[in-house]
Amino acid sequence: MTQELITSATVITPQELLEHWQGHRRVTRRTIEAFPETELFTFSVGGMRPFAELALEMFNMGNPGIDGIITGQWKPYGEQETVSAPKTKEALLYLWDELTEKLNRLWPQIKPERFHEVELAFGQWEGTIQFLLFYFIDNEIHHRAQGFVYLRALGIEPPHFWDRS
Amino acid sequence: MTQELITSATVITPQELLEHWQGHRRVTRRTIEAFPETELFTFSVGGMRPFAELALEMFNMGNPGIDGIITGQWKPYGEQETVSAPKTKEALLYLWDELTEKLNRLWPQIKPERFHEVELAFGQWEGTIQFLLFYFIDNEIHHRAQGFVYLRALGIEPPHFWDRS
Repeated sequence: MTQELITSATVITPQELLEHWQGHRRVTRRTIEAFPETELFTFSVGGMRPFAELALEMFNMGNPGIDGIITGQWKPYGEQETVSAPKTKEALLYLWDELTEKLNRLWPQIKPERFHEVELAFGQWEGTIQFLLFYFIDNEIHHRAQGFVYLRALGIEPPHFWDRS
Repeated sequence: MTQELITSATVITPQELLEHWQGHRRVTRRTIEAFPETELFTFSVGGMRPFAELALEMFNMGNPGIDGIITGQWKPYGEQETVSAPKTKEALLYLWDELTEKLNRLWPQIKPERFHEVELAFGQWEGTIQFLLFYFIDNEIHHRAQGFVYLRALGIEPPHFWDRS
């Protein structure tokens, strides 16, 4: 079975999935950047969390998430944070970029058969690794869209949803 | 090359991708249902479109989208609508459910190698079929999240993001 045969029978390759995630993470990074410093940590609509908290949730899924996917070791969600909540946009973007590099570095270690192995992620969510990865990505799209509404409510043009460059 | 081998080397199978999409579509259906009749067609935040228009956009991507994926024939986006914009929640849900059935019916016709064929979808978006399908899904997650903010701003609890049943 050659790599070419696998690819032609595959919906999305591991490398394409990484690029899919990183493309969305670039849009989210631009969303963080678009917020004024104060409103990033304070502004919300309808009693929801400010965008800095939503972005930190994405980080706190993806960062221990990629470790769990590589090692099979999980700590309960909320008990695995290794960093304090950033208090400035610069610090949040620093964390964001650290994870970008980490994902690129660790991703090649995920073996193809790993995507269909079932685990109890964060000690509470059972599913295949592919389900989990799409959950991380979809959760990011979902919360980033909240951020888009916050920006519109602040009179600020959000980044383009379709531009993943 | 057996089906088992392909599956074990695959990030997500065609059947899983259909279920992924339909799971998200069930959440979106509950989001439509959660809106009061009038606000579904009129309420917005920050000058954005009411949720009925966003849901219709999802329909107007997915409905001719699945036809294009099956046939390779595309009309320009905006010139392919075969239905008038629904004016009631009931009519919108009717369209929604029609597409649910249609996706289930046509999906098995998508050949595995089709996911990596490149096309100019709707006469303007060039990419692989898998890219296009994830674009439909991601666009739905994105706009549905706007709907969640609208519901919160109206004091209404949105459906659970994580419940795809």
